[in-house]
Order: sequence, then C-alpha cells, then structure tokens
Amino acid sequence: MTSSSSGPGIRPVTALPPGEVPEVVISRLPQYVRILSQLLDAGEEVTNSQQLGEQLQVTPAQIRKDLSYFGRFGKQGRGYVVRDLLRELKQILGLNSEWNVAVVGVGRLGNAILNYPGFNPDGFHLVAAFDNNLANVGREVGGVSVQPMAEMAQTVADRSISIAIVAVPSAHTQTVIDQLVACGIRAILNYAPINAQVPDGIRVRSIDPVLALQSMTYYLTEDGPSINGSTAAR
Amino acid sequence: MTSSSSGPGIRPVTALPPGEVPEVVISRLPQYVRILSQLLDAGEEVTNSQQLGEQLQVTPAQIRKDLSYFGRFGKQGRGYVVRDLLRELKQILGLNSEWNVAVVGVGRLGNAILNYPGFNPDGFHLVAAFDNNLANVGREVGGVSVQPMAEMAQTVADRSISIAIVAVPSAHTQTVIDQLVACGIRAILNYAPINAQVPDGIRVRSIDPVLALQSMTYYLTEDGPSINGSTAAR
Repeated sequence: MTSSSSGPGIRPVTALPPGEVPEVVISRLPQYVRILSQLLDAGEEVTNSQQLGEQLQVTPAQIRKDLSYFGRFGKQGRGYVVRDLLRELKQILGLNSEWNVAVVGVGRLGNAILNYPGFNPDGFHLVAAFDNNLANVGREVGGVSVQPMAEMAQTVADRSISIAIVAVPSAHTQTVIDQLVACGIRAILNYAPINAQVPDGIRVRSIDPVLALQSMTYYLTEDGPSINGSTAAR
Repeated sequence: MTSSSSGPGIRPVTALPPGEVPEVVISRLPQYVRILSQLLDAGEEVTNSQQLGEQLQVTPAQIRKDLSYFGRFGKQGRGYVVRDLLRELKQILGLNSEWNVAVVGVGRLGNAILNYPGFNPDGFHLVAAFDNNLANVGREVGGVSVQPMAEMAQTVADRSISIAIVAVPSAHTQTVIDQLVACGIRAILNYAPINAQVPDGIRVRSIDPVLALQSMTYYLTEDGPSINGSTAAR
C-alpha cells in the first residue's frame, strides 16, 4: 500500500490501527505548539478548547478530539495549563531533538533552501546536499559541499540523516524520493506539485504556494469578503 | 486594527460581522476544491460530509459547518453533487479568473519563484518583479524584467496587479509589505517567518517549511507512530 500527499490537510483515506493518531491531527500539532508558545509569551497560564479553537478557527470539539489521542491533558471544566500542554506537545512531536537534514537538488530553489537561516534555530540542520549535475558537485552552498547522488546512501548513514528536502523538477521528484527511501530516509519535504508515492511508514509533506494563493483570491473577487444570499446563490 | 498571519490556520481572534466567513474556513476551501477535483476525475458523482471529512481528516460536522457559510449546498440525507459543489466553490474562490502577480525580491528565492512553472496553469501570472538592489534591476528573470522599487506603484496600477509574493529577507519584509499595501495590493504571499502586520482587508499567507518539518518529526521519534498509554503519560 502506498500513501500520497498533495498539500496540507490532504491525506488518503486509510483505516487506522487502534491507538494510532491520524496524520492530519499530527500535522495540526505544530500549530498548537506555536499558539501555546505565543500564549506563554503573553503570560497566559491556562487555556481551554474554546480559546484554542478560536485561535485556530476550528471547533472546540475538534481541539478536544485532537488532544484526546494523547491522553487526558486537561481537567473537565478547568482547561489546560499552557506550560504543561506546550511541553507535552513538543515532547510528542520530537521538537526537543536535533535533526540532520539532506537537501536534494541544488538548482535555484535548492540554493535558496540551503541558504535559508530559518531551519537551524528550530533544530533542523542542513548537513548534506546532493545534485545529479556534476557541475554543481563540489560547490559550497550555504556552508555545505554538494555531493554526487551516488554518495547519498553512505552520507545518510554516516551523518544519521532521517529527513530530506527535495527540490528537484517535478519530472525527477518521484525517482529521487524512491532513492531517498531506499537510503533509509523516513520524512520528506517535497517542493514539487506532485502526489509523491511512498511506502507505508514514510512521511511526505508538500510546500504548495498555489494552494496558499488560492485561499486569498476569494477576497479579491468583485463582491469582496462579505458573503450574502445572492452571492451564495450565484 | 491589524491582523497577522504566522502560518496555515493561525489567525488572530477577531469578532466577525454577521455573514462574514472566518478566514480559516476560506483557507480550507482550496483543499476541498482539490479533493472534489480528484473525486470528479475518479468518476464519483455524489459525496457527503462523512467522505469529505475522511479525506480531509476533520469531523463531518466541521465540513457541514464550513459549507453552511455559503448557503445550502447539499440536501439532507442526499449529500453533495460533486460537479456542482466543485463549480460553486471555484466560483466562490475566484479560481475561474486570471490574476496578475508581482514578485518582490529577486534573490535566490525570488529567482526560484519567478522560474517556477506551477503558477501559470492555475491562473496566477507573474508579470512583474521588483528589487531594491540596482545590480538586479533590468535583469530578465523567468521572462520578467526586474524593475526598481520606485516603479512599483505605477506598474501595479498599469498591470492591474492585486497579488504580491514577497521573497525578501525577514528584516525588510514588513517595510516591503507596507509599500505593497500602499500601492493597492490586497493579497500577499510571504516567505519570511515573521508575523506581518497589515491593515484590515489585506490578506497575508505564509509559506513555512519549518512548520511542515515539525509535523513529521513525530514519526521519527524512538517510539514511532504508535501512541499508547505510557507514551501519552510521559
């Protein structure tokens, strides 16, 4: 069986073994972490599903259901202690660990990724880069020396790399992902707009700027943001 | 009042006027459109909140609530006609229109964006690029001639540009966004990890690869994807 990913929140329907947490619930937790961090910074000590739901614009029931997968965090009628919930969620998500990451594809996008300073502070260390263009091999990009694809397996093992960022053209993305999986990579951030096929147990997330743009055009249409009866009926 | 954006689904709490649709509901609709397109391609004629909820991994109640903002799409007990719901949602989102887009910042990331072929097929046309580095001005990038920032207002008006993609360093992002807003831009896709401040009525979405990575590390932790009592209690 394969699973595919085609953007945030879009997952194939799979029957979950008892006790397993739906992937989309996990994908929401980093947002909970961000909100809780903001609440903590703002001096808030306690929150509840109502407040979290308002921040994330989902129903309080959805919040309670999401958190229920991980046991009883809150007490009935007393809400959640911000600091405790934040610590638990970070622990669950593995955000207290450091992760070595490989970048595949050192074209324009790969270059931008390797030079992006935002990964390191959150524990994601870009320690290797691979490209099938020999003209790029040996180049120093963002402090990393670009290696040939043939060295991928050895480097992934040597550097304990478990995450890869794939920034190759769509036509080559699936092949590269297959290679990464064969090397033992278990989490892939894919920048190509394709539904990558991966074996069970391998995770793929896609960065999709088109989806983001499509969520804004609503506000640019003639009628503006206010929906009334006539608009809904058109 | 200002609103800010710090990633998918994270919005400030704001009281909504009656009839106004929460921003996060709108931001989910492109995913509905994608699912419905897949169902249509698969030959499905009818769907329901249960099936859509499974695909999107949210509760059927959330689906019904989201769609209820736009009037009565489905018939009680009969579900939604895939083709009709898809057409209505695309119309609501403005996805049948063509949109002119400006890119600000033609560094590594801006270069990658201007050369990305994925925007055009979905109706987003990158027709202008601006950079404050005079060494970049006049260069042809992805078929667009880079202009100085000073020409922004005139070009935005002349080319009917309503959307901008901002790919400048974090330190300059807010200043650039302020300039874009002053020029009449109403929707901004921001690649910097900052909470951009914009006036009411202006939309910002952020592309945040760190958030995507954080949603996968859960599966890389020692205990693996299966959560049981002892894990939840740690």
